[in-house]
Amino acid sequence: MEKIVVIGAVAAGPKTACHAKRLMPEADILLIDQDDLISYGGCGIPYYIGGEVGDETALRSTSFHAVRDEVFFEEAKGLRVKIKTKVHSINRKDKTILIEDMPTGKQEEIPYDKLVIATGSQPNMIPIKGLSSEGVFTIGSLHSAMGVQKWLSRDNVNNVVIVGGGAIGIEMAEGIEDMWGLDTTIVEYMPQLLPTIIDWQFAEMLKQHLEENNVKVFTGEAVTAIEADDSGLVKSIVTDKRKLDADLVIMAAGVRPRDQLAREAGLHVAPKGGIVVNNRMQTSDPNIYAAGDCVESLNLVSGKKMFAPLGSLANRQGRVVGDNLAGIPSTFNGITGSFIMKAFETCVGSTGLSYQAAIAEGFEAEQVITIQSDRAHFLPNQANMPLIMVVDKTNRRVLGVQGFGPMGDGVLARINAAAGLLAKNAVVEDFSNLELAYAPPFSTAVDALNATANVADNLLRGRFRQDSMKTFIEWLKDPSSNPDWIALDTRSKSDSQQFRETYGDRWLNLPYPEMRARYQELPKDKELIIVCGAGTRSYEVQVFLDSVGYTNTKVLGGGLMVLRRLGLVDLPG
Amino acid sequence: MEKIVVIGAVAAGPKTACHAKRLMPEADILLIDQDDLISYGGCGIPYYIGGEVGDETALRSTSFHAVRDEVFFEEAKGLRVKIKTKVHSINRKDKTILIEDMPTGKQEEIPYDKLVIATGSQPNMIPIKGLSSEGVFTIGSLHSAMGVQKWLSRDNVNNVVIVGGGAIGIEMAEGIEDMWGLDTTIVEYMPQLLPTIIDWQFAEMLKQHLEENNVKVFTGEAVTAIEADDSGLVKSIVTDKRKLDADLVIMAAGVRPRDQLAREAGLHVAPKGGIVVNNRMQTSDPNIYAAGDCVESLNLVSGKKMFAPLGSLANRQGRVVGDNLAGIPSTFNGITGSFIMKAFETCVGSTGLSYQAAIAEGFEAEQVITIQSDRAHFLPNQANMPLIMVVDKTNRRVLGVQGFGPMGDGVLARINAAAGLLAKNAVVEDFSNLELAYAPPFSTAVDALNATANVADNLLRGRFRQDSMKTFIEWLKDPSSNPDWIALDTRSKSDSQQFRETYGDRWLNLPYPEMRARYQELPKDKELIIVCGAGTRSYEVQVFLDSVGYTNTKVLGGGLMVLRRLGLVDLPG
Repeated sequence: MEKIVVIGAVAAGPKTACHAKRLMPEADILLIDQDDLISYGGCGIPYYIGGEVGDETALRSTSFHAVRDEVFFEEAKGLRVKIKTKVHSINRKDKTILIEDMPTGKQEEIPYDKLVIATGSQPNMIPIKGLSSEGVFTIGSLHSAMGVQKWLSRDNVNNVVIVGGGAIGIEMAEGIEDMWGLDTTIVEYMPQLLPTIIDWQFAEMLKQHLEENNVKVFTGEAVTAIEADDSGLVKSIVTDKRKLDADLVIMAAGVRPRDQLAREAGLHVAPKGGIVVNNRMQTSDPNIYAAGDCVESLNLVSGKKMFAPLGSLANRQGRVVGDNLAGIPSTFNGITGSFIMKAFETCVGSTGLSYQAAIAEGFEAEQVITIQSDRAHFLPNQANMPLIMVVDKTNRRVLGVQGFGPMGDGVLARINAAAGLLAKNAVVEDFSNLELAYAPPFSTAVDALNATANVADNLLRGRFRQDSMKTFIEWLKDPSSNPDWIALDTRSKSDSQQFRETYGDRWLNLPYPEMRARYQELPKDKELIIVCGAGTRSYEVQVFLDSVGYTNTKVLGGGLMVLRRLGLVDLPG
Repeated sequence: MEKIVVIGAVAAGPKTACHAKRLMPEADILLIDQDDLISYGGCGIPYYIGGEVGDETALRSTSFHAVRDEVFFEEAKGLRVKIKTKVHSINRKDKTILIEDMPTGKQEEIPYDKLVIATGSQPNMIPIKGLSSEGVFTIGSLHSAMGVQKWLSRDNVNNVVIVGGGAIGIEMAEGIEDMWGLDTTIVEYMPQLLPTIIDWQFAEMLKQHLEENNVKVFTGEAVTAIEADDSGLVKSIVTDKRKLDADLVIMAAGVRPRDQLAREAGLHVAPKGGIVVNNRMQTSDPNIYAAGDCVESLNLVSGKKMFAPLGSLANRQGRVVGDNLAGIPSTFNGITGSFIMKAFETCVGSTGLSYQAAIAEGFEAEQVITIQSDRAHFLPNQANMPLIMVVDKTNRRVLGVQGFGPMGDGVLARINAAAGLLAKNAVVEDFSNLELAYAPPFSTAVDALNATANVADNLLRGRFRQDSMKTFIEWLKDPSSNPDWIALDTRSKSDSQQFRETYGDRWLNLPYPEMRARYQELPKDKELIIVCGAGTRSYEVQVFLDSVGYTNTKVLGGGLMVLRRLGLVDLPG
């Protein structure tokens, strides 16, 4: 009877153990965890803090309302389970592990035929003073989440500071602001929220929306210390720019693989962290597998290794480990980095590489941004859904797609559509012709994702020349920054009025339908930055002006509606 | 200067003409239509009838509220446009077409260098008496839609009969019932709604939902005549089973390609209809292209030609024609058949082949059905979202995916994710590992689509044996139909009580968590049909029972929750 030992019982561990047991009913499978709470949906913690999930047991229950505790895994799943059990070391030569029953301190050697390491991740702790003050929490486990909730219930909590503007930090901020109505602040070290995951435009839209919902956001700001009062209770956070009152601090500065056990056992571990596995999730020791947050993953878009801690990946990897334990040669080939999150009334999603990440990885990348209706524009419930597409200009490969939209599954529908294609090395044409399902209540006849690919096509074929949005924003703030520029507003006279009043002769209006009749009124000695609502009319005008000899033009991609969403111009709608 | 003539100005035609004009600003492009209303969103007609779209001009306006009439295309787009103009014939030898200005009857020969046929589709008319009665409409054009709306506004309209249970028929039924509160009936000749597009389970769920919303549905019923009163006004519809009062009849029995002009010009047209084009949308005459509802398409899943009239495809094809006119060798390689529609509070979607269609095409197909949460089951707004996956058991290829869910974009997110993969010949593994974006407000850690692929994997590997749902339903109605069967209910004692009372010793209850301890109580001489809520526990029990020698079992795939959605069992939730 094969002995399989699985270390770690949150996501990848239980998935591996249960799937393997179904494939090998005879196997003796032991599941070990140092905690007493196991198999919980860690991603649900912000919704537990935010009150949408009434009880922590809901986070560790099946869809048919059975609590997934050690008894459940033993009785229903046929596993053996040891909770509150620490694994001290792996003896690969003898194929044993040394464990300790934490309540009694009793140590024991356990033999294995196959071992699975699913030790997960642990929160990053930035090296500052005051981390041990009372009221400073991480959310690395369900216990710490329960600690946060208990602390929030104290009478005298008024100011919450969250260190870290990643997904967990933002979700926690929403939960705390929404449910508890406390003064909530996010401090992020990098210059934007969700750094590397999304590009600055959507990060800025997200920041706007958080601020509209009373969450303060400080980006590009380093936390330098945590201060406590005489009794050791946290009282403030010091950054390189300010001091913030804080009677609850949540450290959400990312996580790192919990790979020490593997490293000490001499398994191959990446220098930056993460157990190295092959596409069958096997470590450098063929008798030892690893899955979940503790492993290093291959990014299928960049071709490079990365760290991708996510419960959904852990589950998919766990199934692959289970298959391989049973002799089925399933593979987990890598990830594309699909991401989505809710933030109050909006959501933001991404798959593949952001423009920023693509450039950092050495790609000759280009980025297009569009802002289009998420469903037929003649329906009253339509909303704008900006999308970003990142493409490799050397080979037309699509490197990434991002979306920002109203809360709902509209952005998800575009991110999911892109995810599978990115894993198949899809090029722009694959997205132009991608057959997204269409009916007016769900999309436009040319879906926003198809249309974004068409804009990328226009760009890559050289018939669309766009201006850098950052440069245009600088010019808007100070038109003297580029004296040769004139904005050519192709919207209606009334739509353009506000800008004409502000910018005078630096802002021309020639409405789109009149362009062919009146283009000769335009100056030839200036560079024209063509603007409209969403960029579509501007592109058409650029193409037309090219054909009549006005070739010194650029288009503001995404148009003024993107600027409005960035909070930079005051536009209706 | 190249002369391009485009015949047809609804969807593919304007798209082709405008895109070509942008690529070839010097070209002389003439757009011709026999109607005076052009470039409208025909798919929006049900929402215009249903009052969500207040004005027909909204259906032919841009997102920036310009009406797309002939003046717009001339002034803003630089095309020449002839409306109310009929094309009588194509003279391929001389490269001319013969047109007639319909108001004056004046005929004219127009030369072309390249011709584009985008003549669309026309409603099927079933050969019965009374079709010309007043009050009988098709919805083949915006004019006929306006006719329906005008008719609906009459005082004495009470009973509406819609002939045809396809997407347009159902959408019209919703619009009429919702907005006008009239007695509304759908009559469909085939045994189910949306025949060939979705399988019977979802068709039945859809029928249930329509009936809950006061739309009567008669399937498997042939309309044999339309009766009118003495003044010629429609008064009833006769079917092979009944007579229905009707003072408005909408014929929505599908459409067929409007390909007569092409056929008469000697172009290759498919025997069943549809202009034959290559993947650059070129007809058998290299100077003539065709796009939109009038062409035959290649189904990328079945490898066979089919007819796929949809505005979204017309637009994608139009762009490809425009590219090719300008010498860019873009291709439109075929379709997967992505489909989605709203019906009151639900939506149903599909891509690829239904089980029924796959079998008809000769595939050795299998079907799995699952019913899972569309988002984390611990969140209060989660809902069940049944999915169907159709696979080829000879090569593990996924042939199709269908979804049925609450109205919103959750089903869209799964259909869109599948669509691109189907076009790339994806197998079950591609769907198991498909990296759908995950956060609790959007999905489950193992997304419903991943999980459905996992069930298909279990089936194809022979470790999951399912019962035919139709056979089980027969047995439920009459347990004597299979005396060897006993249902093994793995839910809790209380959940199973109602069935135990009904079925007595034909319905055993042994709750899932107790299975390993008590399996020896089960009879060995009967075939056990294992049931639970969604099928998940049943699968685990089947695997376990196999391991202990109880191998004569089958699982009710999708579980009792699917039966409840079919209106067949009275279950809570």
